[in-house]
Amino acid sequence: MKSDIEIAQEAVMLPIKEVAQNIGLTEDDIELYGKYKAKISNEYYEKIKGNEDGKLILVTAINPTPAGEGKTTVTVGLGEAFGRLNKKAMIALREPSLGPCFGIKGGAAGGGYAQVVPMEDLNLHFTGDFHAITSANNLLAAMLDNSIQQGNELNIDPNQVVWKRCVDINDRVLRNIVVGLGRKVDGVVREDHFVITVASEIMAILCLANDYADLKERLGKIIVAYTYDGEPVTAKDIKAVGSMAVLLKDAMKPNLIQTLEHTPALVHGGPFANIAHGCNSVKATKTALKMADYVITEAGFGADLGAEKFLDIKCRKAGLKPDCVVLVATVRALKYNGGVSKDELSNENVEALAKGIVNLEKHIENLQQFGVPVVVTLNRFVTDTEAEYEFIKNFCEERGCEFALAEVWAKGGEGGVALAQKVIDTIENKPSNYKPLYPDNMSIKEKIETVATKIYGAEGVTYSPEAEKAIANIEKLGYGDYPVCMAKTQYSLSDDKTKLGRPTGFTINIREVYISAGAGFVVAITGSIMTMPGLSKKPAAYGIDLTDDGKIEGLF
Amino acid sequence: MKSDIEIAQEAVMLPIKEVAQNIGLTEDDIELYGKYKAKISNEYYEKIKGNEDGKLILVTAINPTPAGEGKTTVTVGLGEAFGRLNKKAMIALREPSLGPCFGIKGGAAGGGYAQVVPMEDLNLHFTGDFHAITSANNLLAAMLDNSIQQGNELNIDPNQVVWKRCVDINDRVLRNIVVGLGRKVDGVVREDHFVITVASEIMAILCLANDYADLKERLGKIIVAYTYDGEPVTAKDIKAVGSMAVLLKDAMKPNLIQTLEHTPALVHGGPFANIAHGCNSVKATKTALKMADYVITEAGFGADLGAEKFLDIKCRKAGLKPDCVVLVATVRALKYNGGVSKDELSNENVEALAKGIVNLEKHIENLQQFGVPVVVTLNRFVTDTEAEYEFIKNFCEERGCEFALAEVWAKGGEGGVALAQKVIDTIENKPSNYKPLYPDNMSIKEKIETVATKIYGAEGVTYSPEAEKAIANIEKLGYGDYPVCMAKTQYSLSDDKTKLGRPTGFTINIREVYISAGAGFVVAITGSIMTMPGLSKKPAAYGIDLTDDGKIEGLF
Repeated sequence: MKSDIEIAQEAVMLPIKEVAQNIGLTEDDIELYGKYKAKISNEYYEKIKGNEDGKLILVTAINPTPAGEGKTTVTVGLGEAFGRLNKKAMIALREPSLGPCFGIKGGAAGGGYAQVVPMEDLNLHFTGDFHAITSANNLLAAMLDNSIQQGNELNIDPNQVVWKRCVDINDRVLRNIVVGLGRKVDGVVREDHFVITVASEIMAILCLANDYADLKERLGKIIVAYTYDGEPVTAKDIKAVGSMAVLLKDAMKPNLIQTLEHTPALVHGGPFANIAHGCNSVKATKTALKMADYVITEAGFGADLGAEKFLDIKCRKAGLKPDCVVLVATVRALKYNGGVSKDELSNENVEALAKGIVNLEKHIENLQQFGVPVVVTLNRFVTDTEAEYEFIKNFCEERGCEFALAEVWAKGGEGGVALAQKVIDTIENKPSNYKPLYPDNMSIKEKIETVATKIYGAEGVTYSPEAEKAIANIEKLGYGDYPVCMAKTQYSLSDDKTKLGRPTGFTINIREVYISAGAGFVVAITGSIMTMPGLSKKPAAYGIDLTDDGKIEGLF
Repeated sequence: MKSDIEIAQEAVMLPIKEVAQNIGLTEDDIELYGKYKAKISNEYYEKIKGNEDGKLILVTAINPTPAGEGKTTVTVGLGEAFGRLNKKAMIALREPSLGPCFGIKGGAAGGGYAQVVPMEDLNLHFTGDFHAITSANNLLAAMLDNSIQQGNELNIDPNQVVWKRCVDINDRVLRNIVVGLGRKVDGVVREDHFVITVASEIMAILCLANDYADLKERLGKIIVAYTYDGEPVTAKDIKAVGSMAVLLKDAMKPNLIQTLEHTPALVHGGPFANIAHGCNSVKATKTALKMADYVITEAGFGADLGAEKFLDIKCRKAGLKPDCVVLVATVRALKYNGGVSKDELSNENVEALAKGIVNLEKHIENLQQFGVPVVVTLNRFVTDTEAEYEFIKNFCEERGCEFALAEVWAKGGEGGVALAQKVIDTIENKPSNYKPLYPDNMSIKEKIETVATKIYGAEGVTYSPEAEKAIANIEKLGYGDYPVCMAKTQYSLSDDKTKLGRPTGFTINIREVYISAGAGFVVAITGSIMTMPGLSKKPAAYGIDLTDDGKIEGLF
């Protein structure tokens, strides 16, 4: 069997300008990055912004397991399947983070015959958007520390600096550091922290900003520190907004690539869904909606994280209305949730399936709370059996969901036609009554508790003393009407990654709360989730190589 | 008077594919990055590598002063002037570093009507090469610390880690830090340091590597730490070579842009000349030599730094033979060297000129030691007088140098024709007997002392105890035959930046010495030079902005 990178490298891509032409973009509307990547110009969006919006389809999944789900694979394959049905469709994905490619996660281009290409470029530097975000983030940090060093006119308390540096590498030793050691000219000593770039507030801002004016407005609002009197100090106070915006100028433009079947894909922005809001950019989604009749997008990790934030943060803030949600599972992952060990997943086991399907059940119920019709799909594996499919199909239909198999990994778009047809039928026959889970005017604690109880299934929420204090301060500062962005392990509905299935009788523990005033949400950190990953004992980097003639090997 | 960015933004650029076509590159030979930047494919070099080499002209300067010299401006204008004379010429420059653009230095695209464009792109992310270098540098660091964390099988002494993280921002608080604080999972605590990206050994390696095989070979040799037994640990031992090479794949390809007059310019690699070897990439220089009859390149800062390293490191290692050196000065800078204050430089003052010209004199003598013919040029300012020109012209001709004015700032290529003609005459009439200053088989101390006494004019060299020990160890490890890469202030021939003109009676103080085994040289750090700059009290970043319709302002 061929590996994903082998399939991707054997693909015959169209020059991206041809893909662009096929959807009505002239050479002047795009900026090429090599032959197979392009950015869409700002001027083009101005031209099409009066068009009617297409239908918006969100692809999400059950909680991820080591058995694999394939949410991106289904997203890509579904986009291709719409093409097979002669529908005008576009895919809108997030860009992968560089760090995890060298750790254990691997890339995020889909898999098998449902991939976006060029996968190596996408998984590495792509068009440089993340590097621009890293630069803007770290310029702000340097200007902040310089402001303290050069007389501290803003009266910043070095013990209350909240802005963190970032790097797009899994680098655990940078989680907690002390900076400014040495002589007087080497800066003021203080404790500092690095996060991974995808957790930077600037990533969230880039993904939520409508245009340059909105970008600058949001950048200016970022709270970087507090004064000795407890007053917030913003990026605007630091005078860093213009320079950060200049660094982000090109990164704000959506990137166009293609699937293995030449379906156009806008891949733009990449916050993680466990430690950030987990959706691709508003700008790309809105551009795609003006260009296509069907836009297939995804949100990160399980529906408790990515989809909840897509619906409660992105759609609320950007005025988007999803028409249908596709919920991805695999037979293997459901059996894993039912207690089957990883090396026994290939055996038929309807009993374990029945036990593990409660995870899927909870996600179906959750999505139905948002008023959006749900289609469940199984990303097909060769070891699945008909009895297992039948069981799941019945289970879904009993709960008012359409069901279809996705065979896109092995068959590309052809393998997604049944699913695409179900999605079209659903959109045509079931109205979407989308509404966010909670109103703006709830208190922060009520919002956290609403998500914890209604989505995660918790019995309640506990708060650390620091979190209590931070919430009170955030409300005092006037940010009480912002939605909450939960940071939680992706592996469980609870904040304990070992609890599979549909855990009950647990509480959610809020360790830390802070305001992302520029992004426009309040971050609540649960359990032991970390904003900077580490490398494993044998990181993927060990297996990655470049041949003397420039071929990349071992990237997955 | 228009600012550089205004002139650049008003320029009518040719699409870079047309510039490429004009020099024989087909669309298949290049990879576009937007409409005005491209990378040259590896395959193209394979096609042309049998061509005869063109003539190689190095542009260097006197020691920089606040009065301004304009080395890049002259390099660009000279390239354009060759075009006016219907000669096939290419320019080969370094890429600017992002950090100093937000500090005080500003960009590095030339000035006035002798600029390379698009200047904003060039000064910001350009084609992402520096970001790739930063990523590779920091991945190696993360893998190194991970190796210590995960059982430390390589027996690395955390007190003897010599690999530093890097960032392309002027960020003084990162000079000296402590990493790995927190819990057991947050890494092993140790002192660490960040350097600016241009000082990374990976930058030097990228600039000196011939191809991917050479790149990987060099990356593998990087010494990152020593074991408890004092044995070197390399990047190869850390198993980071393949992943770093993958990250550097595209960064290895030279970038093509154009001057305001559409002269092709390869802009590739960017080590600083004060803290690194200061020359553009070997790959770009060799490519340009195969493509053009005249290649005009520059080396950073004054001839004591950039030109010495160009001649002693780059040419020695890459087998290049320069045909002519152009030495740039300004009347104002020479008067500044003669003791005139910055606000009185506009007044004619031949006496001060006579006093300050000793700086130029020393650089002429230095360059003549390498056996290469020298042409002196003055980058013309409106306040210069004929008497001042006459004095300098006579001074140069008495020392066997050709002389010509460069009026390229105001007139573009037309203003460089006289200089170009002098360069052509010199190449045709004066043979270049290039030889490096010292042989490979001198001891490291003898090499340092040769550069210090023969180039800087020092009476001798002192060494810190750490430097003494490091030199002994480097020779013991078998690297005694490497050339030395001096890190020294650019503002003086000595290691004390306040000593202008032609200082005498001073010693050079070697603070630190380390081996860059992958780059292939021994770095000797003098005086108080630092490998991570800081921001000033009012950094340039304060004046940089992005308009709502995407125009960059305040970059210079």
